Amino acid sequence: MPTFRVIELGPSGAVETFDGAERAAPSPAEVARWIDLAAPDAESLELLRARFDFHPLAIEDCAHLDQRPKLEEYRDHLFLVTQGFTCPGTRVEELELHEVHAFVGERYLVTVHADEVPALESAWKRVASDKRPLERGVDFVYYLMADAVVDSNFPILDRIADELEELEDQVLENPQRQDLARIFELKRHLVMMRKVLSPQRDTMAMLSRRGDARVSERTSLYFRDVYDHLSRINESIEANRDLLGNALDAYLSAVSNRTNEIMKYLTLLSAIFLPLAFVVGFFGQNFENLPGFPDWVRSDMLMYAVLAVCIVTPMAMLAWFRHKGWF
Amino acid sequence: MPTFRVIELGPSGAVETFDGAERAAPSPAEVARWIDLAAPDAESLELLRARFDFHPLAIEDCAHLDQRPKLEEYRDHLFLVTQGFTCPGTRVEELELHEVHAFVGERYLVTVHADEVPALESAWKRVASDKRPLERGVDFVYYLMADAVVDSNFPILDRIADELEELEDQVLENPQRQDLARIFELKRHLVMMRKVLSPQRDTMAMLSRRGDARVSERTSLYFRDVYDHLSRINESIEANRDLLGNALDAYLSAVSNRTNEIMKYLTLLSAIFLPLAFVVGFFGQNFENLPGFPDWVRSDMLMYAVLAVCIVTPMAMLAWFRHKGWF
Amino acid sequence: MPTFRVIELGPSGAVETFDGAERAAPSPAEVARWIDLAAPDAESLELLRARFDFHPLAIEDCAHLDQRPKLEEYRDHLFLVTQGFTCPGTRVEELELHEVHAFVGERYLVTVHADEVPALESAWKRVASDKRPLERGVDFVYYLMADAVVDSNFPILDRIADELEELEDQVLENPQRQDLARIFELKRHLVMMRKVLSPQRDTMAMLSRRGDARVSERTSLYFRDVYDHLSRINESIEANRDLLGNALDAYLSAVSNRTNEIMKYLTLLSAIFLPLAFVVGFFGQNFENLPGFPDWVRSDMLMYAVLAVCIVTPMAMLAWFRHKGWF
Amino acid sequence: MPTFRVIELGPSGAVETFDGAERAAPSPAEVARWIDLAAPDAESLELLRARFDFHPLAIEDCAHLDQRPKLEEYRDHLFLVTQGFTCPGTRVEELELHEVHAFVGERYLVTVHADEVPALESAWKRVASDKRPLERGVDFVYYLMADAVVDSNFPILDRIADELEELEDQVLENPQRQDLARIFELKRHLVMMRKVLSPQRDTMAMLSRRGDARVSERTSLYFRDVYDHLSRINESIEANRDLLGNALDAYLSAVSNRTNEIMKYLTLLSAIFLPLAFVVGFFGQNFENLPGFPDWVRSDMLMYAVLAVCIVTPMAMLAWFRHKGWF
Amino acid sequence: MPTFRVIELGPSGAVETFDGAERAAPSPAEVARWIDLAAPDAESLELLRARFDFHPLAIEDCAHLDQRPKLEEYRDHLFLVTQGFTCPGTRVEELELHEVHAFVGERYLVTVHADEVPALESAWKRVASDKRPLERGVDFVYYLMADAVVDSNFPILDRIADELEELEDQVLENPQRQDLARIFELKRHLVMMRKVLSPQRDTMAMLSRRGDARVSERTSLYFRDVYDHLSRINESIEANRDLLGNALDAYLSAVSNRTNEIMKYLTLLSAIFLPLAFVVGFFGQNFENLPGFPDWVRSDMLMYAVLAVCIVTPMAMLAWFRHKGWF
Repeated sequence: MPTFRVIELGPSGAVETFDGAERAAPSPAEVARWIDLAAPDAESLELLRARFDFHPLAIEDCAHLDQRPKLEEYRDHLFLVTQGFTCPGTRVEELELHEVHAFVGERYLVTVHADEVPALESAWKRVASDKRPLERGVDFVYYLMADAVVDSNFPILDRIADELEELEDQVLENPQRQDLARIFELKRHLVMMRKVLSPQRDTMAMLSRRGDARVSERTSLYFRDVYDHLSRINESIEANRDLLGNALDAYLSAVSNRTNEIMKYLTLLSAIFLPLAFVVGFFGQNFENLPGFPDWVRSDMLMYAVLAVCIVTPMAMLAWFRHKGWF
Repeated sequence: MPTFRVIELGPSGAVETFDGAERAAPSPAEVARWIDLAAPDAESLELLRARFDFHPLAIEDCAHLDQRPKLEEYRDHLFLVTQGFTCPGTRVEELELHEVHAFVGERYLVTVHADEVPALESAWKRVASDKRPLERGVDFVYYLMADAVVDSNFPILDRIADELEELEDQVLENPQRQDLARIFELKRHLVMMRKVLSPQRDTMAMLSRRGDARVSERTSLYFRDVYDHLSRINESIEANRDLLGNALDAYLSAVSNRTNEIMKYLTLLSAIFLPLAFVVGFFGQNFENLPGFPDWVRSDMLMYAVLAVCIVTPMAMLAWFRHKGWF
Repeated sequence: MPTFRVIELGPSGAVETFDGAERAAPSPAEVARWIDLAAPDAESLELLRARFDFHPLAIEDCAHLDQRPKLEEYRDHLFLVTQGFTCPGTRVEELELHEVHAFVGERYLVTVHADEVPALESAWKRVASDKRPLERGVDFVYYLMADAVVDSNFPILDRIADELEELEDQVLENPQRQDLARIFELKRHLVMMRKVLSPQRDTMAMLSRRGDARVSERTSLYFRDVYDHLSRINESIEANRDLLGNALDAYLSAVSNRTNEIMKYLTLLSAIFLPLAFVVGFFGQNFENLPGFPDWVRSDMLMYAVLAVCIVTPMAMLAWFRHKGWF
Repeated sequence: MPTFRVIELGPSGAVETFDGAERAAPSPAEVARWIDLAAPDAESLELLRARFDFHPLAIEDCAHLDQRPKLEEYRDHLFLVTQGFTCPGTRVEELELHEVHAFVGERYLVTVHADEVPALESAWKRVASDKRPLERGVDFVYYLMADAVVDSNFPILDRIADELEELEDQVLENPQRQDLARIFELKRHLVMMRKVLSPQRDTMAMLSRRGDARVSERTSLYFRDVYDHLSRINESIEANRDLLGNALDAYLSAVSNRTNEIMKYLTLLSAIFLPLAFVVGFFGQNFENLPGFPDWVRSDMLMYAVLAVCIVTPMAMLAWFRHKGWF
Repeated sequence: MPTFRVIELGPSGAVETFDGAERAAPSPAEVARWIDLAAPDAESLELLRARFDFHPLAIEDCAHLDQRPKLEEYRDHLFLVTQGFTCPGTRVEELELHEVHAFVGERYLVTVHADEVPALESAWKRVASDKRPLERGVDFVYYLMADAVVDSNFPILDRIADELEELEDQVLENPQRQDLARIFELKRHLVMMRKVLSPQRDTMAMLSRRGDARVSERTSLYFRDVYDHLSRINESIEANRDLLGNALDAYLSAVSNRTNEIMKYLTLLSAIFLPLAFVVGFFGQNFENLPGFPDWVRSDMLMYAVLAVCIVTPMAMLAWFRHKGWF
């Protein structure tokens, strides 16, 4: 169900909060407004379009909420799509992608989003309880929100980096199939984050270079800061992808090592018992009296000789393998 | 067989549709026309060239219809090659590449294509039933068509992404040769899509920056939107290529894992039965009375000892392997 | 042996062909000339240098004919190195690299090449039999020649793409060592083509942007077309490299699959016969009367029990392997 | 505990050093100051902000000291984040990342850092004992410090390169699991260095292009030198990553080679003893008198024949394997 | 020991050569000088700095001679670092890196280098014996030297390419461990060449675009030629890296193929002898009279049947393997 809410900074300098669509309209002179629309439907978007004269393409984007980060400049407002991830649990299982569409006019900021965006909520609380942000301008309010959305990506990347380092060690020790599945899952997360956060950086770069009525020069300094954070995030994503390649290589070489180790054991077994099997088989032949051997070899001495061979052969084999450095 | 058809917006503001080559000519003042030529032959192209004075190189391109996406600027019209894919079934088996050549003049749009292009047909129906697109200008009509061509790529990429994720899981479970063939097939599709859709984006970027008689500033906003979609498509292609690398790595490591598992089983078998074979072989030797053993060992006790060895040895082997973490 | 030949378009509008070095000189006013020098030696190059006042560096380049594609601008002429491949047989065995050096002046085109270049010959025939190209200007004549050189690369790439797709299927079915050698050979061809055709594109881009006395604006449209073809060629080379990666991966995984299959067969054999060998070995021991067994086990029943074990064991093994999905 | 210290070049031309926060303030005319704050806390940073009117964002950065290298331009000062690595031991075990935040005004340089930075200490000593650096300007003092920070990366990269070359040889000889772990560890170091030193280069490029009141043209020559060092460092990192790929490939192929070698030994064993086992097993069958053989074969001759087979078979096998080039 | 030598073109138009530091000074009007300093020490560099007023940073660079290629512009001279490789033997074993530092003023060229640089020696001889180079200007003299340094890289790359092609064939035939070591060695060479020659290209690009007092427009044409050579070299390095990837893939797949082949042989052996061992073991059991068999089976017929099984089984196995395409 679409929900409108508004924070207004009136000429008296007091900040007030309203629910409902009533004040979801361009602000009169001397008034600055942040209008937030959650879970929009066709009707509520049409209301925005009619009151603010937004471009049909932008309104159509708001109806879908599966855009890429972008910045579009219209005659009297900017249209911004901002995206970021949060991750509910402590383990990076399922990333939630949050998308906020924002219209930044001279005295109004309109935000549209589908689900509840934690970063937007925290910005909302701050702006509702402190008049300074709205006094600085709606561009600064947008900065507060965008900065919170962007910064929510840092802990995810840190956790992925930590887990990758762990995975690499663990996999070198003892490669398990679920480790492999986990590596691929983390890669999917990184692919998704890069797909979203790399264009996000470009829009912040554009904002930090601007300096017109909608984004004051003072605020553009702040957007430069957000741009910087996004650069760090993108560098972290790349670094994480490198580490992920490490973990995968570690897995493959650990499996290959293990095959090697098993092969060595099999060969050792064969090297010991195949000759022995021949020896005892030889004396198991049904030649009467094993003709050709003098009598005494049928005596105890042969018996002990065979026993000796059965003990010496494996030892010689083991010594030779150790000499070759296999064990 | 070449087929001409024309939609005309006359000075009266009414939209009319005509079949045949008669009105396939530059429109008189106050009239806007969309002329569509399907399955062109040399004759019909010569007719266009003669009536519109198109450049021989552009006409030659239309004769072949295996160009790459491009935008060429002539004195009084733009020549545009637009390409997109559709995929008939629900499984991404064979991609169909559609190519539309368009001449965008001040009051005419000429489109040339070989087979039936679904996206063009839907645009045609909309323009034929609604006068607003042609009122906005032939550049907007071209936008409608190009946007539909571009958007037809989205479902293909989504289906590939879904299938890749499935393939990865399936392959980790149980690698099958046909999975490998499927991975390579999907990669071929992605290679083909990138080859076509990456230059397509460049032409849309050029259109979105223009603002002359042929592409009004108002329409260039719309081309920016198409450019944005193409950026998203290209990012999806890259992300899919990454996922495809995952699926391939998953296959290779699953095969390598399976070899490992089989090796372990083989080694286990050998570790159990090679020593046993030696033991029973030893007592199969034809020494009379196994001299050297005291009499009692020929009694039941030896017999039971051998039986015990035959039971204890495999158990010890299994225990040792489990200790080494192989099973 | 150096061979000069000249096509001349005189003021009378008639095209004439001459052999020999006589007319290998700057054309008088009203006359346009294409001078072609095959298999140059020091003497013939000095002749050109002296008559046309070409730069020593350009003449030095002509003496070696192993340059990279380039465009150099001198005061009164352009110096162009154009390269392309042809492939004699139907199978892509040995690529022939053709190199044409061209000096484009205001009313002369001088081409220098070592061996016979098929594309240049076809352009030569066309210009010799039709006065229109020379009437359009020597830049257009150069375009005709360069376009033919560039287009001769298309069939090679198409054949490589077809063969790669075939190779991939074939290799997945039955990996042969000669397939691997063939994959590497094709990669060498692609590496060589990219090395040559990627700088070639840059020179055409420069030509298509020019518009001075030597390259008329009308002709630069045509060079844009050649540039476009080279873009398509370079995209094809990249796509082919991707397909080649596929074929190589297919080979490696097919070999790895096959090792796996052989291992499974070996393990199956061992799993059936190692236990059987133990069973028959056990009863091959030379214990008198196998003491401990009651008399009846020495009767037929034991005999049949052993036979039964020898039949049931392999079946149980097979059933278990099938259950584990190995076969 | 936050520690302030100040170097001051007074109008008398004498350099003096002070401890404590007293002189941590903008310098009066004719005085140049380097103010260093180690281990900052909220209070000391607020002191700086209040006295110098630094931007809140910059002060917030100083509070965290986990920024990326950057250059921010404020109205009357530059804010610079400089990072570099040192490595305590002779083996590249654990890299220490040092981060220095610097405010470069017209007559003051303020540096803020958490731990002791060796490069900064050496610059501090030089500036405290020699008046020339401060005479040249605070930008030159910043150069001295930044240059030392950057140059401390060279020995690390040289040691990594040396170790990689060693590792590659060692791994080709005798692949050990700890080598693999070491390779991955070095890769993590390189990933981290690239993440930090690649943006560092960009800030130096910006400094070397500037020429305003804060960075004199004379000093920008020096920054060009630092930029150059950073380019060399970044090229070394890339080259090291290539070498690292070598070492990893060497490991994988050495393991694969070793598996191959073990397989050959196992096959050799089997090829020798399996036929022998058959031969002696054949004559171990309990046929009375091996009927069908003439009497004489039960004589010594058969016995010797079997012995001969047992000697000739392994020799033939060995000869055949050698012929096939396996050994 | 530092060695100075000078070539001077006096106002008389005669070229003279001097040894020693005496004329290592800025040239008087009408005189052009090439001053060469080999094996510089602190003293000789200070002499240059004092006489020519070179920048301390440039002099410091000369003291170390381990810079990267660069071009620095000072008020009245250019400072250039040029690097190239030579390779003493016919096999590419150890590359020698030569580094020449050059100061190009209006009428002087100062070169500084550590060891003897063959390319510089050949340029020196040419300039000492021919007055034309110095007449053209010191920039042209620098061109002669730099061109020789750059061109000395071509034969190395050609030899590497030839060797790589050979290695690839050889490795596919019969993979040897020393081939692998050689592949890695060549890769190290290529990594080093790219690290040096890629920035070298950038400095030549800068020179070819210049046109001031120190580099005349006429000479910049020549630097464009050197730039072109460096482009070709860099493309060759990239192509060689691709071929190197081929050789490495060839090695790995040849080893993997060989493992496969050995496995097949081992499986064949087992498939033949394991069933036979069972057969002869079965009849080696100590059942009295093999009860249950009719009397006649103990006769010659059974004996022959066993012999037949021992001959038919291996044949059937071989036929089946051939049918499966393993041999």
